[in-house]
Amino acid sequence: MEYRPSDPVRLNEAGDRIIIIDQTKLPGEILCREIEKREEMCDAIKSLAVRGAPCIGIFAGYCMAVLAGQEAKKQKDFEGFASALAEASAYLNSSRPTAVNLSWALKRQETVIEGCRQEASVSEAVKRLYEEARRIHEEDIAMCLSISEYGLSLLKDGDGILTHCNAGPLATSRYGTGLGPIILGQERGMHFHVYSDETRPLLQGARLTAYEMVEAGVDETVICDNMASLVMKQGKIDAVLVGCDRIARNGDFANKIGTSGVAVLAKYYGIPFYVLGPVSTIDLSCTSGEEIVIEERDGEEIRSLWYEKPMAPEGAKFFNPAFDVTDHSLVTAIITDRGILREPFEESIRSIF
Amino acid sequence: MEYRPSDPVRLNEAGDRIIIIDQTKLPGEILCREIEKREEMCDAIKSLAVRGAPCIGIFAGYCMAVLAGQEAKKQKDFEGFASALAEASAYLNSSRPTAVNLSWALKRQETVIEGCRQEASVSEAVKRLYEEARRIHEEDIAMCLSISEYGLSLLKDGDGILTHCNAGPLATSRYGTGLGPIILGQERGMHFHVYSDETRPLLQGARLTAYEMVEAGVDETVICDNMASLVMKQGKIDAVLVGCDRIARNGDFANKIGTSGVAVLAKYYGIPFYVLGPVSTIDLSCTSGEEIVIEERDGEEIRSLWYEKPMAPEGAKFFNPAFDVTDHSLVTAIITDRGILREPFEESIRSIF
Repeated sequence: MEYRPSDPVRLNEAGDRIIIIDQTKLPGEILCREIEKREEMCDAIKSLAVRGAPCIGIFAGYCMAVLAGQEAKKQKDFEGFASALAEASAYLNSSRPTAVNLSWALKRQETVIEGCRQEASVSEAVKRLYEEARRIHEEDIAMCLSISEYGLSLLKDGDGILTHCNAGPLATSRYGTGLGPIILGQERGMHFHVYSDETRPLLQGARLTAYEMVEAGVDETVICDNMASLVMKQGKIDAVLVGCDRIARNGDFANKIGTSGVAVLAKYYGIPFYVLGPVSTIDLSCTSGEEIVIEERDGEEIRSLWYEKPMAPEGAKFFNPAFDVTDHSLVTAIITDRGILREPFEESIRSIF
Repeated sequence: MEYRPSDPVRLNEAGDRIIIIDQTKLPGEILCREIEKREEMCDAIKSLAVRGAPCIGIFAGYCMAVLAGQEAKKQKDFEGFASALAEASAYLNSSRPTAVNLSWALKRQETVIEGCRQEASVSEAVKRLYEEARRIHEEDIAMCLSISEYGLSLLKDGDGILTHCNAGPLATSRYGTGLGPIILGQERGMHFHVYSDETRPLLQGARLTAYEMVEAGVDETVICDNMASLVMKQGKIDAVLVGCDRIARNGDFANKIGTSGVAVLAKYYGIPFYVLGPVSTIDLSCTSGEEIVIEERDGEEIRSLWYEKPMAPEGAKFFNPAFDVTDHSLVTAIITDRGILREPFEESIRSIF
């Protein structure tokens, strides 16, 4: 496949390193980092240098391929190779708990290795792991385009749109999920007024969504998370678009902390609330949102943004959940690459599998 | 009256300067500033060095007294004195539009001057303006205690309480309004688990409420504004307590941006939502929240918190409303110094006047 410099994750020419755009440096600096060691891979996910559920999936696919290439140089024995990679996969999988795409991509690569077991050729396995990684990436581009088309069919020219966190090209590939319809519409001469929740504590909305919207030429206004109620009340918002990290079988879904609050507000103000994500985000083994483990991160992320000084006093505690779960009763539609799903979600989700 | 070093606004011993705790420096630094010029007074309100509706009212009362003392040295003619102070009052009143206490306190001082017109003694007017300023302050302490008692009657030992912004001693005098019941309960051996919204963009919750709670020995956890939905859903919150800047005749009220969102969430999760403020916060000339002017502040306040670097890209716009209006249908009760008001608010509010 052909990579673009704006791709948040891609292979270098030799194919032995992964080039990422370090998303913790945006929007001030566009820093590309080359990654090859598995500790660097894990750190890149943990530190959010690579982030966004689909993007983490793409990254994980390439990680397994690159690690397989390294392993192939160390041992020719297939069993040793396979068990080293199984261990690497478990290690990568431990880096973040909430995004289903991470374990989903790792499982796809494990299946590739399984498929090579009979043949027992290490070099063939490496080749197929690279192919599978590129396939995951290409599929994601196609999926994002499909989601964007479906999403765009629900919007009108001139709409005001509220988004939370970042579900654009940086979080996925090319169009993005939550922001895909906006970027696609803009390419086709439509104009939207986008309001981005800044999305504390790590400000993905202010740093990344605003960056992507400005890059795409979209009219963009950053607000603090707590201003969403006011802009909705003032009639500025016609639709809410958000991405998702994991969708349960009943339509409950996990996404960046604060999403459930936005959904409650949208319901109260009578504004459609759309969740956008590929089918791979749906976790059929998960019956409802109650089963989704919410990652809790270091309170220091909340504490340290006041001009480098602690912004809260000694003795204060912090609670820093990274995600929350939104009840399906608050969701107007789930927009996937295979179509638009509506209530009852249990049925509409089942119908696409 | 007797001042305490923890009073956010007080007179110096000579009575010719106002000592304030600069609340923009908290919690890192407890900086007391002496203020005497009217430009400094206006700046102190605009920059939020003095903040919180009742505290601004107390400050405005003293400002008029101190300025009257200065004016008395310049002119002995009562009419010249009165018109200079009328001008000063209009100037101070322009510093912030939303808090009713500012214009309320200024009007009280204008009435004092009116009352001296017959006698036409400048020195008598100055004396009475100082008395009135102290009376405003003393009344506020008594009002806060009364509000705290009423509020505490609605809480149980061990309750989890969510607050937004800061309505504690720093915003008022001694006990505070929104935080008064918590501090009073703590003094009486009760224990609450307080969750403070950090309250972007200026972080009054993280900086000031957390500071006051830790000072008072209360169990305190800071969350980002967008985490309120999650802690409510997790059952951690038994009641929401917030202050208010202006209450309309129908119970709609203006308070720090984000309050209306918290109210919508509390309604959705079935959690009582209490608004606490003195009767002086009720503006009978205001029939509903639609008439309340919302102050819009500089977008730079949103943009500049990412480690001193801009946290959003060039080209992004910002919308920075400082307050929002919460519909009375979302309010469980308004707790004033004259009792607890419930629906229908139009009637219950009328009954206390």
